[in-house]
Amino acid sequence: MSSAGDRLFGGIYARGRVAAAVSDEAWVQAMLDVEAALGGEALAAVDVEIAQLGREAAEHASPVVPLAERFLATHAGATSQDILDTAMMLVAKRALVPLLDDAGAAADAAAVLAERHRSTPVMGRTLLQPAIPTSFGLRAAGWMTAIDEPRRALGELPLAVQMGGPVGHRDPAVAADVARRLGLAVPVIAWHTDRGLPARLAAFLGVLAGALAKVARDVTLSPELREGVPGRGASSALAHKHNPVAAVSVLACAKRVPGLVATMLACMEQEHERAAGAWQAEWGTTTELLALTGSAAAWARDMLEHLEVDEDAMRAGAGQDPDLGASSALIDRALEVHRR
Amino acid sequence: MSSAGDRLFGGIYARGRVAAAVSDEAWVQAMLDVEAALGGEALAAVDVEIAQLGREAAEHASPVVPLAERFLATHAGATSQDILDTAMMLVAKRALVPLLDDAGAAADAAAVLAERHRSTPVMGRTLLQPAIPTSFGLRAAGWMTAIDEPRRALGELPLAVQMGGPVGHRDPAVAADVARRLGLAVPVIAWHTDRGLPARLAAFLGVLAGALAKVARDVTLSPELREGVPGRGASSALAHKHNPVAAVSVLACAKRVPGLVATMLACMEQEHERAAGAWQAEWGTTTELLALTGSAAAWARDMLEHLEVDEDAMRAGAGQDPDLGASSALIDRALEVHRR
Amino acid sequence: MSSAGDRLFGGIYARGRVAAAVSDEAWVQAMLDVEAALGGEALAAVDVEIAQLGREAAEHASPVVPLAERFLATHAGATSQDILDTAMMLVAKRALVPLLDDAGAAADAAAVLAERHRSTPVMGRTLLQPAIPTSFGLRAAGWMTAIDEPRRALGELPLAVQMGGPVGHRDPAVAADVARRLGLAVPVIAWHTDRGLPARLAAFLGVLAGALAKVARDVTLSPELREGVPGRGASSALAHKHNPVAAVSVLACAKRVPGLVATMLACMEQEHERAAGAWQAEWGTTTELLALTGSAAAWARDMLEHLEVDEDAMRAGAGQDPDLGASSALIDRALEVHRR
Amino acid sequence: MSSAGDRLFGGIYARGRVAAAVSDEAWVQAMLDVEAALGGEALAAVDVEIAQLGREAAEHASPVVPLAERFLATHAGATSQDILDTAMMLVAKRALVPLLDDAGAAADAAAVLAERHRSTPVMGRTLLQPAIPTSFGLRAAGWMTAIDEPRRALGELPLAVQMGGPVGHRDPAVAADVARRLGLAVPVIAWHTDRGLPARLAAFLGVLAGALAKVARDVTLSPELREGVPGRGASSALAHKHNPVAAVSVLACAKRVPGLVATMLACMEQEHERAAGAWQAEWGTTTELLALTGSAAAWARDMLEHLEVDEDAMRAGAGQDPDLGASSALIDRALEVHRR
Repeated sequence: MSSAGDRLFGGIYARGRVAAAVSDEAWVQAMLDVEAALGGEALAAVDVEIAQLGREAAEHASPVVPLAERFLATHAGATSQDILDTAMMLVAKRALVPLLDDAGAAADAAAVLAERHRSTPVMGRTLLQPAIPTSFGLRAAGWMTAIDEPRRALGELPLAVQMGGPVGHRDPAVAADVARRLGLAVPVIAWHTDRGLPARLAAFLGVLAGALAKVARDVTLSPELREGVPGRGASSALAHKHNPVAAVSVLACAKRVPGLVATMLACMEQEHERAAGAWQAEWGTTTELLALTGSAAAWARDMLEHLEVDEDAMRAGAGQDPDLGASSALIDRALEVHRR
Repeated sequence: MSSAGDRLFGGIYARGRVAAAVSDEAWVQAMLDVEAALGGEALAAVDVEIAQLGREAAEHASPVVPLAERFLATHAGATSQDILDTAMMLVAKRALVPLLDDAGAAADAAAVLAERHRSTPVMGRTLLQPAIPTSFGLRAAGWMTAIDEPRRALGELPLAVQMGGPVGHRDPAVAADVARRLGLAVPVIAWHTDRGLPARLAAFLGVLAGALAKVARDVTLSPELREGVPGRGASSALAHKHNPVAAVSVLACAKRVPGLVATMLACMEQEHERAAGAWQAEWGTTTELLALTGSAAAWARDMLEHLEVDEDAMRAGAGQDPDLGASSALIDRALEVHRR
Repeated sequence: MSSAGDRLFGGIYARGRVAAAVSDEAWVQAMLDVEAALGGEALAAVDVEIAQLGREAAEHASPVVPLAERFLATHAGATSQDILDTAMMLVAKRALVPLLDDAGAAADAAAVLAERHRSTPVMGRTLLQPAIPTSFGLRAAGWMTAIDEPRRALGELPLAVQMGGPVGHRDPAVAADVARRLGLAVPVIAWHTDRGLPARLAAFLGVLAGALAKVARDVTLSPELREGVPGRGASSALAHKHNPVAAVSVLACAKRVPGLVATMLACMEQEHERAAGAWQAEWGTTTELLALTGSAAAWARDMLEHLEVDEDAMRAGAGQDPDLGASSALIDRALEVHRR
Repeated sequence: MSSAGDRLFGGIYARGRVAAAVSDEAWVQAMLDVEAALGGEALAAVDVEIAQLGREAAEHASPVVPLAERFLATHAGATSQDILDTAMMLVAKRALVPLLDDAGAAADAAAVLAERHRSTPVMGRTLLQPAIPTSFGLRAAGWMTAIDEPRRALGELPLAVQMGGPVGHRDPAVAADVARRLGLAVPVIAWHTDRGLPARLAAFLGVLAGALAKVARDVTLSPELREGVPGRGASSALAHKHNPVAAVSVLACAKRVPGLVATMLACMEQEHERAAGAWQAEWGTTTELLALTGSAAAWARDMLEHLEVDEDAMRAGAGQDPDLGASSALIDRALEVHRR
């Protein structure tokens, strides 16, 4: 049995390399890596029969217990929450590599458009009505900057280990040691029921997805733009149509994100030293957030790297030859920040 | 590659029989069944290489196009949205069978508790503080009624075919015919971009999930209740602990639902005759909503059918021997409605 | 002190008659009316110093306690939750009158457009790209049907009294009596912590708001449509612009709704006999949901009743003279259902 | 007419000083201040008839147009979006002063509890079941750290001016000048439809509200804790009850926040140079987010500054005299970070 979104819809919702980085195998590998960092034996997820593990996980409301029974050496005080929370951060850290790479490439492609089209007039539109002309380069520079900010925030998020033991007492030297081995940060204190860190991760993914949705929305609304991937987007029914497949897919992914962020925030209300329900809801939600935002980033990169601009149509729509000197200076300024 | 929630966390998030009813295979079968109802050949999803289909789906932002190219006879005016929307309703119809069966069994189990414990005093609690005694039977009757209502609403939802063709013109006789063959309802008019139906499905699932969460929350908060499944819920670290695994799992599933309902409602803002993004976001969201609510129902059934009540502890907590006659009459009334 | 959205933004977020029906005064009047239905003295909210009441309410996390101290006769077993929940239903019942009136008028205006433009060709658009022509009348008939369904569901919702006393024991004859006096329904059992009813109210408002948003989105995307209210929508900066003020306002209201519905669903997880927090979060959320959906309905009515259709531009955009006979029959069928 | 939440429920939802900082008057004053920073005349909101302004605002889907007509000198290229976005940032900046002050005081009060109760044993609870003892001081240190992080993130958020003119061209020197006068940041580029900044503001408020909810949830679940405000929380019906009014109110506010954050994220999908609907939805949502999070912070401060700890009951519940030395060192470490 497999959930939808996996194979049938996975081309849309799970494009690119993030999906593999948040797969069952990736989660199990992360848990095994945490164990290894705690002094256990280095193991590979490939040896784990995940479906059976999942069935046993249901008996404990946690996949760590059956994993531990089978593969993990006694981990001297680390609880299943320690293992799982640290593994979640490790999964996030690994998934952010391709995610931020794709987001960065999307911003770079927007930068190329900004540079190239600094003198291409396009009708500016406010409330979807024609307003006054601007340059297409300035619009693209806005896309670039919108993507850059959450990309940087995600890159700087201090993903931290969890090593508190059952109620948060554990010697912080262990946390520091595990953190060093895994390339994660050391928290101020155990965060068993302080979920600010996964919540911030979710929120930043939400801001990035929102920035990508804005770009895709503009593409769907611009008859002068066309996604130039050969063979893609041909309509099954209508030969003259060319569908903005990448933009539609960015939007399909990104529209699923805000509700997931709300779930993560609502789940911050966690009881005492380990929550009954709110914690366990995070695992699937975080996985979805990474996969969908990663897919949106991969689609956005694809869309922007192949965007064909009909300059003549843009000029005609702008209806006049505006002075775009101010716009050009603004583009240069934004490009300079982008390149930092 | 597979997404998490599938195998590793599937024991928690995808318990019971609903997950199989919303799997990739189930979706493909539903699409093939719609085609058959349109006069095509009857085919089985087992012959479809779904992963390859999914990859090609990405080129069209729809899995129907590659499916049609391969397996479907020319479907005389039905568009990929017709096929997909009708298939979504068929998937929902099929998934609701086990989902409502589990929800009904959970309500039945609550009814048994209501009947059995009509004279078992328990301290009533308001704002989590002790208030005055009530009967545990009355609390259980409240659980039962809370589950029954959205269960009935889901059972009565007129899941309808979509057969409008590219812009909604299609002869309604075709819709009526397909509806009859598939056991679905006939819509007033094509609902390509009127998404009230999937939104109501989502909302009713949300109300059911909320009702189940309330029951599970009470269970986690009641030291007099224990989930009596042998071997389950033993703590890995603490021998004296017995964890409410089913209640925690109900909550883990149910807490993921409200955000998904918000997504479906936000996605009602669909453009013209087919939306760019908002429609495509529904597929995965509806799948998740069915799977998670189905899992919550399966867990709730399991929890309520195995609930052990420590009557002595309840009596001791109630601190007095209250008159529970009024409570008993209220239980009878609620049971009568339940049995209708 | 007053919150924003009140006066400054109230023209946008609180258009029409619903806002007054969910005002502080309306809530207080509803509470007084519940008391009168319980046999207390009939009082008018005008005599209540609401700001002072609100300050005292903070000492009890409930406005009923100070109200009761001042104005209410001893209400023989009714608790502050009984009063407040019943008042919430009464507020909803009263607010739904203008809300459904405006939604009905919006659907009627769409019906007029459907009738009038059954032969007006317009280019059908899928994924925001031109597809094949349809009639503008058919598009308008889709709007009408989309509004009608949640309107009817809201009209049929059995808004019920709450009369359970502290832990749900109270004689149901009291509930029946109060329900009769207030024109509300009798619940199966006390619903102190079964929040299916307010959740369904929220969900149906969400579906209606979504339907209105779809119509408004189409209007903003259609250069052939213009909101013909003299003097409105002139741009401050650009003389040639005519802004779709009503459509933008429908969208501004409707986009705020899905998150509020998610809040109501998440708040269904209520503890024991009265919740600590989740219940108290409902009051403001329900108020906002009614006010925003009511405002969206008032704006949508205004928009549709004043919609100017540039038939020549539509025809020109359609690019051919399509056969609209099938479309016309579909419109008739939808109109017939609308008129029932 | 006024919306509920204002006076009747305002004691709960709008406690403290933030509500006044986001009032209609505060918004109007901010708009006038932006105008003054642009070289206009310094005016006071007190002279503005806000209700009339709001009515006229409805004719433009913006309150800036009628304000400009009446009070503002010609502002040389600043659009109504420039004024409104900059005013929104100014409102946020001013509202964050009391909000962060209350949140900081709440964290300080938690720090006092952490210091004082480093040796007070309390039963640690996981999945709401007793686990092993910990110190109440360590739990309080977790609360403190959870509040500190989003408090700092909010304090460091670079709230920026918007000064792009109709399509983003405007001379950045104007933005720099206005920013300096108002104490706001300078953006990289106009952010008319790049809504990362308001979205991040929303998200950080959401994380803070979630942290406060966690603390309040623990308080409601701890029979050993009591809110020691004389006269508050007495039950109207049950003399022996003492209700956790502040904790309940924190939760009532905080539970309303995640849905609002989802709204802000969903509204990031903004079209071209000014959005039709998504932008206009932000004003009320941002106002609510500030007011509710501000109220939650004020309530949390009140709750923590008056928290009475029944040490004997804690010790008895812990059931043994655990070694709390490790816990004490962890508290010191967290306190040191708090005091930075």
